[in-house]
Amino acid sequence: DFLNAFQNDIKPAFGMAEEQFERYVANGIINWGEPVRSILEDGDLLISQGKAGESGGLVTALLAGPPNSGKTALAARIAMSSDFPFLKFCSPEDMIGFMDTAKCQMIKKVFDDAYRSQLSVIVVDNVERLLDYGPIGPRYSNLVLQALLVLLKKEPPKGRRLLVLATTSRKDVLGELEMLSAFQTVLQVSNISTSEQLLSVLEYLDAFSSKDLDFISRKTDKKRMWIGIKKLLGLIDMAKQTEEAYRIPKFLSKLEEEGGLEMS
Amino acid sequence: DFLNAFQNDIKPAFGMAEEQFERYVANGIINWGEPVRSILEDGDLLISQGKAGESGGLVTALLAGPPNSGKTALAARIAMSSDFPFLKFCSPEDMIGFMDTAKCQMIKKVFDDAYRSQLSVIVVDNVERLLDYGPIGPRYSNLVLQALLVLLKKEPPKGRRLLVLATTSRKDVLGELEMLSAFQTVLQVSNISTSEQLLSVLEYLDAFSSKDLDFISRKTDKKRMWIGIKKLLGLIDMAKQTEEAYRIPKFLSKLEEEGGLEMS
Amino acid sequence: DFLNAFQNDIKPAFGMAEEQFERYVANGIINWGEPVRSILEDGDLLISQGKAGESGGLVTALLAGPPNSGKTALAARIAMSSDFPFLKFCSPEDMIGFMDTAKCQMIKKVFDDAYRSQLSVIVVDNVERLLDYGPIGPRYSNLVLQALLVLLKKEPPKGRRLLVLATTSRKDVLGELEMLSAFQTVLQVSNISTSEQLLSVLEYLDAFSSKDLDFISRKTDKKRMWIGIKKLLGLIDMAKQTEEAYRIPKFLSKLEEEGGLEMS
Amino acid sequence: DFLNAFQNDIKPAFGMAEEQFERYVANGIINWGEPVRSILEDGDLLISQGKAGESGGLVTALLAGPPNSGKTALAARIAMSSDFPFLKFCSPEDMIGFMDTAKCQMIKKVFDDAYRSQLSVIVVDNVERLLDYGPIGPRYSNLVLQALLVLLKKEPPKGRRLLVLATTSRKDVLGELEMLSAFQTVLQVSNISTSEQLLSVLEYLDAFSSKDLDFISRKTDKKRMWIGIKKLLGLIDMAKQTEEAYRIPKFLSKLEEEGGLEMS
Amino acid sequence: DFLNAFQNDIKPAFGMAEEQFERYVANGIINWGEPVRSILEDGDLLISQGKAGESGGLVTALLAGPPNSGKTALAARIAMSSDFPFLKFCSPEDMIGFMDTAKCQMIKKVFDDAYRSQLSVIVVDNVERLLDYGPIGPRYSNLVLQALLVLLKKEPPKGRRLLVLATTSRKDVLGELEMLSAFQTVLQVSNISTSEQLLSVLEYLDAFSSKDLDFISRKTDKKRMWIGIKKLLGLIDMAKQTEEAYRIPKFLSKLEEEGGLEMS
Amino acid sequence: DFLNAFQNDIKPAFGMAEEQFERYVANGIINWGEPVRSILEDGDLLISQGKAGESGGLVTALLAGPPNSGKTALAARIAMSSDFPFLKFCSPEDMIGFMDTAKCQMIKKVFDDAYRSQLSVIVVDNVERLLDYGPIGPRYSNLVLQALLVLLKKEPPKGRRLLVLATTSRKDVLGELEMLSAFQTVLQVSNISTSEQLLSVLEYLDAFSSKDLDFISRKTDKKRMWIGIKKLLGLIDMAKQTEEAYRIPKFLSKLEEEGGLEMS
Ligand SMILES: Nc1ncnc2c1ncn2[C@@H]1O[C@H](COP(=O)(O)OP(=O)(O)OP(=O)(O)O)[C@@H](O)[C@H]1O
Ligand SMILES: Nc1ncnc2c1ncn2[C@@H]1O[C@H](COP(=O)(O)OP(=O)(O)OP(=O)(O)O)[C@@H](O)[C@H]1O
Ligand SMILES: Nc1ncnc2c1ncn2[C@@H]1O[C@H](COP(=O)(O)OP(=O)(O)OP(=O)(O)O)[C@@H](O)[C@H]1O
Ligand SMILES: Nc1ncnc2c1ncn2[C@@H]1O[C@H](COP(=O)(O)OP(=O)(O)OP(=O)(O)O)[C@@H](O)[C@H]1O
Ligand SMILES: Nc1ncnc2c1ncn2[C@@H]1O[C@H](COP(=O)(O)OP(=O)(O)OP(=O)(O)O)[C@@H](O)[C@H]1O
Ligand SMILES: Nc1ncnc2c1ncn2[C@@H]1O[C@H](COP(=O)(O)OP(=O)(O)OP(=O)(O)O)[C@@H](O)[C@H]1O
Ligand SMILES: [Mg+2]
Ligand SMILES: [Mg+2]
Ligand SMILES: [Mg+2]
Ligand SMILES: [Mg+2]
Ligand SMILES: [Mg+2]
Ligand SMILES: [Mg+2]
Repeated sequence: DFLNAFQNDIKPAFGMAEEQFERYVANGIINWGEPVRSILEDGDLLISQGKAGESGGLVTALLAGPPNSGKTALAARIAMSSDFPFLKFCSPEDMIGFMDTAKCQMIKKVFDDAYRSQLSVIVVDNVERLLDYGPIGPRYSNLVLQALLVLLKKEPPKGRRLLVLATTSRKDVLGELEMLSAFQTVLQVSNISTSEQLLSVLEYLDAFSSKDLDFISRKTDKKRMWIGIKKLLGLIDMAKQTEEAYRIPKFLSKLEEEGGLEMS
Repeated sequence: DFLNAFQNDIKPAFGMAEEQFERYVANGIINWGEPVRSILEDGDLLISQGKAGESGGLVTALLAGPPNSGKTALAARIAMSSDFPFLKFCSPEDMIGFMDTAKCQMIKKVFDDAYRSQLSVIVVDNVERLLDYGPIGPRYSNLVLQALLVLLKKEPPKGRRLLVLATTSRKDVLGELEMLSAFQTVLQVSNISTSEQLLSVLEYLDAFSSKDLDFISRKTDKKRMWIGIKKLLGLIDMAKQTEEAYRIPKFLSKLEEEGGLEMS
Repeated sequence: DFLNAFQNDIKPAFGMAEEQFERYVANGIINWGEPVRSILEDGDLLISQGKAGESGGLVTALLAGPPNSGKTALAARIAMSSDFPFLKFCSPEDMIGFMDTAKCQMIKKVFDDAYRSQLSVIVVDNVERLLDYGPIGPRYSNLVLQALLVLLKKEPPKGRRLLVLATTSRKDVLGELEMLSAFQTVLQVSNISTSEQLLSVLEYLDAFSSKDLDFISRKTDKKRMWIGIKKLLGLIDMAKQTEEAYRIPKFLSKLEEEGGLEMS
Repeated sequence: DFLNAFQNDIKPAFGMAEEQFERYVANGIINWGEPVRSILEDGDLLISQGKAGESGGLVTALLAGPPNSGKTALAARIAMSSDFPFLKFCSPEDMIGFMDTAKCQMIKKVFDDAYRSQLSVIVVDNVERLLDYGPIGPRYSNLVLQALLVLLKKEPPKGRRLLVLATTSRKDVLGELEMLSAFQTVLQVSNISTSEQLLSVLEYLDAFSSKDLDFISRKTDKKRMWIGIKKLLGLIDMAKQTEEAYRIPKFLSKLEEEGGLEMS
Repeated sequence: DFLNAFQNDIKPAFGMAEEQFERYVANGIINWGEPVRSILEDGDLLISQGKAGESGGLVTALLAGPPNSGKTALAARIAMSSDFPFLKFCSPEDMIGFMDTAKCQMIKKVFDDAYRSQLSVIVVDNVERLLDYGPIGPRYSNLVLQALLVLLKKEPPKGRRLLVLATTSRKDVLGELEMLSAFQTVLQVSNISTSEQLLSVLEYLDAFSSKDLDFISRKTDKKRMWIGIKKLLGLIDMAKQTEEAYRIPKFLSKLEEEGGLEMS
Repeated sequence: DFLNAFQNDIKPAFGMAEEQFERYVANGIINWGEPVRSILEDGDLLISQGKAGESGGLVTALLAGPPNSGKTALAARIAMSSDFPFLKFCSPEDMIGFMDTAKCQMIKKVFDDAYRSQLSVIVVDNVERLLDYGPIGPRYSNLVLQALLVLLKKEPPKGRRLLVLATTSRKDVLGELEMLSAFQTVLQVSNISTSEQLLSVLEYLDAFSSKDLDFISRKTDKKRMWIGIKKLLGLIDMAKQTEEAYRIPKFLSKLEEEGGLEMS
């Protein structure tokens, strides 16, 4: 019955946290520029605050940025880079089709489990999906909203320390829901926006010949673009599978279409 | 009881996938022109991306077009033309009268089954109906919307590959629901719009004498029309059953009425 | 309990289809003019399409017209005039007080039963009542709407043929619900609007003396009116029970009041 | 439990119909003027239509009028004056605190019971309360509305005849709910509005001395007022219990306050 | 379980009616002026109407006034001053956290119990809270509203007599809910508004020395104020506990602040 | 099952009241200025009113102020400083994911328990969260609202005395919900707004060297700021963990960013 299904759905989700974290950084973290460096640095600071703050045991941060910008991977990487013994992912992917009461129970369980460990990190991924945000209405689960608003403020028990990293593509919606002020910090995740950053990624991946890279470099030089790392990896993928002759034009035209690259 | 009914309803739906796919291409795919060719080509590309992408195991596309334009048949044909061992149809026809919780469970089950296979294709047919979209309100199932938004972004387990082909007649509604950006690609399915395309179909079907075809050709030459292949097949059907004398006029007048053919 | 009540309510409804169809044509079909002839002719066409279409096994039509215009009787008559072995009435009268889930199940069952027969006709009566349309709000059952939208498009299994005849007094509402395009054809049922049509009915029924008919004819000649056949039959009924002296004036004044007859 | 309570609540309601009807005419029907005579006459007509109509077995009428105008008593009196063997009262007073599903079942049961009798009258009292009409929103039970809309149009089984008399103080609301056209006839119940009508009541009741009546007659002569018979009976009651000296002034001042009597 | 809790909650509420009534007049009724006298007189009239009306057995009145004006105490006092054998309090305090179905059942039970006694008084306290009125929306329980609208009009069984006294601080809301006309009478409860009325209370309570009273009298003479008796009793309380030196200034400044006293 | 979970969740919450109160004052109450002193003084007054009022046994107050201003800690301190034998915390933190029916029961239980003790204090923390206030809609639990509105007015049983201290960051919302007038008193909690107040805190905590304090004092002198004590404690925390060289600049820049400090 439903409760059994529930049990079974939950168990693997909680038993494989480590593996689960790796999944979300499937393509590693490519250091394509200052924005990446800066987020990782802030992440370090959050970890040390999480370990040693005196006035309370709770540190909370929101990673906000456009779709495909790498928010989930960055949150997972920061979480893993702490040496906290308890890591949990709280993701809408594990709650598909759940009523909001079930969602709440699952979220609450993640936090309750964390409260039992000395040092814990929780990644609360894709908050707008956890909230079941639907733009026509608009609609959202008030039950989940209230639960998160309380959990993001609730001190862990005495002597326990907890770092919460949340992600969202809809900072605007979270703002309207008066949720932003529940976070102690908001970190902005950025898309790739310059030719240099693009080239960093391409060079790192060794996906094109150096002649091709030169060509791409010249074509995109000084041009503006706005593309998330996840989408970029997809384009590179597609280019790789295209016949060699069409590879670069196809890549550039797709970059124009999907990444807003200004060509002329 | 309900649960039993549920079991019984589901089983055949899942046991007969192959046969089910054939059903949706009952009248074959007539290559009536460039739009058809182009969609089928894009379909090939999706299949090869599905098989060999490196940055992730998920490829998603939406086939959007007017009612009766052949979206479902095209999605089914593309799915079948892959040689993926796992094919599933996820259609509102199998969920009539379902509450949205039951719908969600069924959709989720289709994806969960797919995750277990190496290479899978899922056709998610008639998304606006899956979403229970009702224009007065407007109303929709937020539970199904959230489930689809997550499933369309969720990577299959490591080493598994999944191609999702969805169809809709209401791209506008999906846009308002902020669902379009959840698809990696959107393919536009077109109605028949020229005399040449019309003649291709009629010739292929061998439904009229060549004299009749000539007459129709002259009458429709350079005229604009806008009719879906499914509707056109219906009109031909009706014409066939009309007395020979009235056949062509009846066909042309219906084409005028239903297909917006400009007559003069 | 409820389920038992459900069983019991359903059984007679399905066991007495033939008898049920007769009920809806209690006063026969009086051929009072061109509109009646034309609908019956369209009905014949629908039946032959239903029997012999090649591109699919489903034919759907909506009979739309003002209240009391005879929609239900006409749909029933067309259904009976086919020689299809399976006839079913799907009427809100058999679903009074049903929650929409129960309504959906009942509607679905009618279609599922039809799919099992070679040739079937279903009359879906009074669609706005099946949809629980309430004008303040407005409100409607989205569950029933979605079910009908899917069922009106769903092909019967291979080799099975199905003719669906629906009726409504609220074409406007069905339009707003984007339901009209789900029907392949819409037939307009008309009220009685001329003196000639009125006289046809009165003569056919032999309700008045020929002197009275002459009088009525002169009084209504060239006048406009707009009255449904069902309401007209009621007025004749009432006139019959009035004292002879008052019969004709009473009839004419009621016709003025209820049928918008322009008197002077 | 609830179902038991339900059973118990229902039983007396149905077992005591005769007695119940008397209750609603506790103070008899005082023939205070033309409006009363006219309604009773219309009532006779309805009864004879109910007995002998040929085109169908259902006659429906709505008694609409201001609060306290005597609608319920008149409907009950008309019902009793038929010699139909089956009389039923369908009143919100017997459904206090019912959810609308329970209400629907109860209403449906009344009609189903009536269908089993040759000749039946049902009084559907206070339709706006049966509909749970709440002006803020506004709100209403769509389930009950749909049930009534269908029941008011549904022919009783062959050979059975049914007269339905409904009452309402909110004809406007029923109009917005598109319910008025479901009734074959609407009868308007009136308040007392002239001095003569007032005096008829007072004389009939023998509540004041003839000197007092003269005084009241002079004071109210040619004045307009607008008071329901039920409220008037209450005022007379109150006057009777006042000391003799204050009786007439008190009565007149209350009439001014509650009945809009124009004094000068 | 819930039903048990329900039983237990209800029992004491109904077993201790007498005691309960005393509770609501904890500080007695101080006759501080004409408004009080007038309400009590109206109360006497209601009681005698309740005992002896001829046209029906039901008398209903609403006590409406500002918060803290003493509505509940006055209703309780009037109820107790009748010598009716059956007294019941129907208060939201006994229904905290009840769903509206439970509320309805409890209210209905109070009335049903009353119908069994020859002469009964029911106090329906704080109607806006019984209705769960929430100003944002606004929201209210339509189930309770409908139940009250019917109960306030429903005659007790033959030979039984019932007086209903309701209280509200939100006559405006009850008006919007079209509830006011369901009461036969509306009595207005007033706040204390003059220096004389204030002094009546202070003298009666013997709370200040006569020198203090003189001072207060001079300070408030001819000034307007608007303070409920319950709030005033609270201020006196607070003053009593203040050091003697600050007592009078504190009292006057609080009167200014809370009671709108115009100081200069 | 759920009920068990409920039991278990509730028990510790009620068994550890003392400890629970300490938790909420984890960093003590630093007397950083007049606003703090004034609230504590008002608290004393409330306690003595709670103990000795004559006109009733209930005293209620709302502590309203910006987020992080120390409302909860102040309410807890006042509660503890009474020597009342019964102390309870009624906090949304103990009701995460509760449906509003469960919330109501829990709140009601706290009050019912208090009614059994001679002298009781209840802290109702974060009222807007108890009400499940969601700004889009807006939404709130009307069930909890109604329960609180009644409980805040309900006198404890004879001889029992109860002090209720509630906190909120959304006085505006409570005003719209017409909840403010249900409290006898509203106390305003303030943020730190001057350099002197800031220095009081820093000196008290001994977090910086006296040279650093001098520097901060000079930099913030005469400047406006607006920062809650809880946030300030967090900033100090962070500064402490920064390398000595960057400590003061980091602290001041964060104060500028988060505390609205005007720098120049
Ligand atoms: N610098 C980087 N930052 C983040 N991700 C990176 C970086 N370099 C490579 N990646 C890879 O890019 C992908 C980022 O995908 P991810 O799911 O984190 O994006 P997202 O912003 O969460 O997307 P969505 O908006 O769909 O939630 C991962 O596979 C990750 O390994
Ligand atoms: N080139 C073509 N493309 C698509 N369908 C074709 C083509 N040629 C023939 N057909 C036939 O036309 C029919 C198309 O119907 P289909 O149900 O796919 O349309 P649809 O756009 O999905 O309609 P709906 O809007 O109702 O969902 C099928 O029977 C199919 O076999
Ligand atoms: N030409 C005709 N067309 C339709 N009905 C006719 C005709 N002649 C006689 N009738 C009789 O008139 C009645 C029509 O009633 P029917 O219930 O079909 O009307 P309707 O339009 O469905 O009403 P409603 O709007 O209430 O659903 C039937 O009793 C039928 O036997
Ligand atoms: N001519 C009359 N018409 C109706 N009622 C009359 C008449 N004469 C006396 N009565 C008495 O007046 C009372 C009418 O009350 P009734 O409940 O029928 O009014 P109502 O309009 O239904 O009120 P409400 O608006 O509250 O439903 C009854 O007691 C009835 O016996
Ligand atoms: N003249 C009076 N009228 C009413 N109450 C009085 C009077 N004199 C003294 N009292 C006392 O004042 C208090 C009135 O409180 P009560 O609860 O009746 O006010 P209320 O208007 O019902 O308040 P709320 O608006 O909160 O419901 C009671 O304790 C009562 O004993
Ligand atoms: N003067 C003070 N007033 C209040 N709290 C103080 C004071 N001095 C130090 N503190 C400490 O500051 C913290 C105040 O946090 P608290 O949770 O009470 O704030 P809050 O206003 O309730 O926050 P929120 O808006 O999140 O509910 C506590 O740790 C408390 O010990
Ligand atoms: Mg992500
Ligand atoms: Mg399709
Ligand atoms: Mg009909
Ligand atoms: Mg009535
Ligand atoms: Mg009160
Ligand atoms: Mg707080």
